[in-house]
Amino acid sequence: PVLHYKKCFLTCKYKYYNRGWCRYVSKAATKTQMEFDYDGPSMKTSVPGPRSQELTKQLGDIQNVGAVNFFCNYEESRGNYLVDVDGNRMLDLYTQISSIPIGYNHPALLKLMTNPHNLSTFVNRPALGILPPENFPDKISESLLSVAPSGMSRVQTMACGSCSNENAFKSMFIWYRNKERGQTAPSDQDLSTCMVNQAPGCPDLSILSFMGSFHGRTMGCLATTHSKVIHKLDIPSFDWPIAPFPRLQYPLEEFTRENAQEESRCLEEVEDLIVKWRQKGKPVAGIVVEPIQAEGGDNHASPDFFRSLRNIARKHGSAFHVDEVQTGGGTTGKFWAHEHWGMDDPADIVSFSKKLLTGGYFQRDELHCVCLYMCCLFQPYRIFNTWMGDPSKNLFLAEVLNVIHRENLLEEVTRSGKALLKGLYELQGQYPNILSRARGQGTFCAVDICDDETRNSIMLKARDKGVILGGCGDRSIRFRPALVFKEYHVHIFLNIFSDVLAQLK
Amino acid sequence: PVLHYKKCFLTCKYKYYNRGWCRYVSKAATKTQMEFDYDGPSMKTSVPGPRSQELTKQLGDIQNVGAVNFFCNYEESRGNYLVDVDGNRMLDLYTQISSIPIGYNHPALLKLMTNPHNLSTFVNRPALGILPPENFPDKISESLLSVAPSGMSRVQTMACGSCSNENAFKSMFIWYRNKERGQTAPSDQDLSTCMVNQAPGCPDLSILSFMGSFHGRTMGCLATTHSKVIHKLDIPSFDWPIAPFPRLQYPLEEFTRENAQEESRCLEEVEDLIVKWRQKGKPVAGIVVEPIQAEGGDNHASPDFFRSLRNIARKHGSAFHVDEVQTGGGTTGKFWAHEHWGMDDPADIVSFSKKLLTGGYFQRDELHCVCLYMCCLFQPYRIFNTWMGDPSKNLFLAEVLNVIHRENLLEEVTRSGKALLKGLYELQGQYPNILSRARGQGTFCAVDICDDETRNSIMLKARDKGVILGGCGDRSIRFRPALVFKEYHVHIFLNIFSDVLAQLK
Repeated sequence: PVLHYKKCFLTCKYKYYNRGWCRYVSKAATKTQMEFDYDGPSMKTSVPGPRSQELTKQLGDIQNVGAVNFFCNYEESRGNYLVDVDGNRMLDLYTQISSIPIGYNHPALLKLMTNPHNLSTFVNRPALGILPPENFPDKISESLLSVAPSGMSRVQTMACGSCSNENAFKSMFIWYRNKERGQTAPSDQDLSTCMVNQAPGCPDLSILSFMGSFHGRTMGCLATTHSKVIHKLDIPSFDWPIAPFPRLQYPLEEFTRENAQEESRCLEEVEDLIVKWRQKGKPVAGIVVEPIQAEGGDNHASPDFFRSLRNIARKHGSAFHVDEVQTGGGTTGKFWAHEHWGMDDPADIVSFSKKLLTGGYFQRDELHCVCLYMCCLFQPYRIFNTWMGDPSKNLFLAEVLNVIHRENLLEEVTRSGKALLKGLYELQGQYPNILSRARGQGTFCAVDICDDETRNSIMLKARDKGVILGGCGDRSIRFRPALVFKEYHVHIFLNIFSDVLAQLK
Repeated sequence: PVLHYKKCFLTCKYKYYNRGWCRYVSKAATKTQMEFDYDGPSMKTSVPGPRSQELTKQLGDIQNVGAVNFFCNYEESRGNYLVDVDGNRMLDLYTQISSIPIGYNHPALLKLMTNPHNLSTFVNRPALGILPPENFPDKISESLLSVAPSGMSRVQTMACGSCSNENAFKSMFIWYRNKERGQTAPSDQDLSTCMVNQAPGCPDLSILSFMGSFHGRTMGCLATTHSKVIHKLDIPSFDWPIAPFPRLQYPLEEFTRENAQEESRCLEEVEDLIVKWRQKGKPVAGIVVEPIQAEGGDNHASPDFFRSLRNIARKHGSAFHVDEVQTGGGTTGKFWAHEHWGMDDPADIVSFSKKLLTGGYFQRDELHCVCLYMCCLFQPYRIFNTWMGDPSKNLFLAEVLNVIHRENLLEEVTRSGKALLKGLYELQGQYPNILSRARGQGTFCAVDICDDETRNSIMLKARDKGVILGGCGDRSIRFRPALVFKEYHVHIFLNIFSDVLAQLK
């Protein structure tokens, strides 16, 4: 039966189809949700509209605007809907590159701003490493420690994802060299050579990373990023080992044997590279990996793969760093994506940023040592910078975690994610020449498009119909809604997406 | 004549001296200033007090607290006075490692927080590079562009000082390679090799830096930082050239001939290194330098030195990057320290953070090119990350600049700086065995102490009497008050400092 939905929010002429559509019946929004959400997209112009174009021109005199999509009216944005300066209201499945945890202008966060006790936290940004505010230990306990990964009780905040990974790498190098020195003091030669960038003070250590990975764009991080030419071209780098990341077939459960073989191949390569780099005199101090390669194209691997990788790291004395900058914060249906691996000691270091609002990393106690020499991480000022994060972000994070808990958002994500993936499978069946490799965990989903040009065309068409999507890899669309993205939002999205695909046919 | 000052704010027993002291008569504070400032230090315990010690223990379970001085009550802090959790109120001449521009809880900044129009800027942190807020071009124009260095009309915000320098370096590398390629498209070999960290895609380019410099702690920045072992030990680095920075004699005007010779020596070395590194196949894409080396010990050089250095960079086709992260924001009496050089084209890149509240860098138009290839900086996503700064910091900065203008703070800084340096010269005359090499520009002053141990002892004693100081170099004390540090604050400081020195005798 063809159902007629209320579609007033689409400016385009609405079309009905006989197949597939009837499934996407919007469940009525609950009262709480409605309070800070709109009931659908509403488009006034194509995007970018005239006002966005004018502002882009204005900003173009000041900085590079080549990446600017459009300008936003953040005051009018609510929940899952981003409003632009031309009055277009769009369902946001990209959420500022996956960095808005509970939607726009969540009332809990607005309320926090009106509490006069919080004012000074915003106005006086401290040098956290030397002069922390009184409530800092409590705020860290309430926020970050309450979601500490298994086996980890120590956390260091940082300003952004790149800084988090840079400092996580530094921690691994310091830990590794300390181990090499047998927990003794650095030699005079260590001390004199390090000042002029030479070994042994600045040792020839390496971090093993994976092809397709993205760990940031500062020069240490960038040496482990291998997703797109545009990130890397013209920037000097380190000769560090790069292993292949499994290229799995989807749906995973239909290709278990083939995928296991592919993962074995990659794991063998990892061990070979570790041995090879040790022989080259550039030992692998740490392995860094994303639980799902995001920027590189939403590439998944099995819990088995990660368990084996963790064991390889341990076997070869390398630290194991899980980069949860994009996967962390609940979007896979668990707070950390690595929880899906079911391990008691999943990592030595877990870095985060984006949805956590503050950057930083957790680390295992073992990465510290209690010695009197400055070789160790207990020595002050080794991991340090002026701000070391921003306590105002910790305030927000504590409240975000309250909301996640109170509104059972991880369950919602699991439910929405299932509906989203089911819808993608169906559309993939319907448009096999356009869509393939639908995949995901929670709402952290993606689908491949036949080619880059069609992918970009779909994204622009969807935007003009009121849905914001992000790309990744060569020709994937990645879905990165906020944690408040409910099943009925899934259906609004699927309806529009289906409409776009139908027009392409 | 011995004058009796009201000294109720000192808990220590007050002593009078026959010489020197009479100069430090406190000028009465103006009404505006008093509104958000205290009238002097007030000490209840030694520092850290019992509550700070308790909190340090608590935080020690979560992270490294080796660098923590004490815990702060930021709500009670005002103007130049930092209040700790034990109720001690201290005159702050270090201001969170030189990062508080107009004192604690400035009423103008508190007022900004109560404006409901600003709420959403704090609550919804955007991905500035793709989805900027409507008021972003205006806020950037009002704030950063209104203080753009000579010859610069383009600015890129970043989250912190390290990220700013990392991205400034990347801009120089991209610009340099683009020049090498003759503004043509990168080759297939460029594209394929960059993905695996190899030349020519990841070229063997270098940045020339100076011994004693500090440009940050992420791995690219760290390769140009050479101030302390503790920053560098155990972290892999790049083989980049490091030139000697002039070791001048102070007061500068008494040693012009000797200092000019020393500067010539260093400049010759710079040119030699550029040639040598070109021959090594690692051309110098850029030179990075601080107008005053801060962390490295407050080392000055003359305007002549910097003018020659800028010319050397131009002669050899290297970009010239002036790192104003610590010197920028008015503390030298001009908004940028490089303004003292009196040049129309002082730099190709000027980076900032700290007192500017947001990180970032200005650059000359010439660093951009208008070509169709992705070789150039106009291509989107080459200089990019998720947040690219934080618009809420731009809001604060715009207001800080208003206050600087309205309260003539650069003039105040010049006046206070003169009084501070005069006081230091006098004390240096009085205590020649303890103090030497008093130096400074504006309130960006320093003095050397006879040895490291005495330096640290002086700093602790001064703190217990209600003055917060910072160290730098091997045995220097650096003064980094806020821009609202007036002449009468100078006298309060000098009285206490003199008292500490008298007790050492």
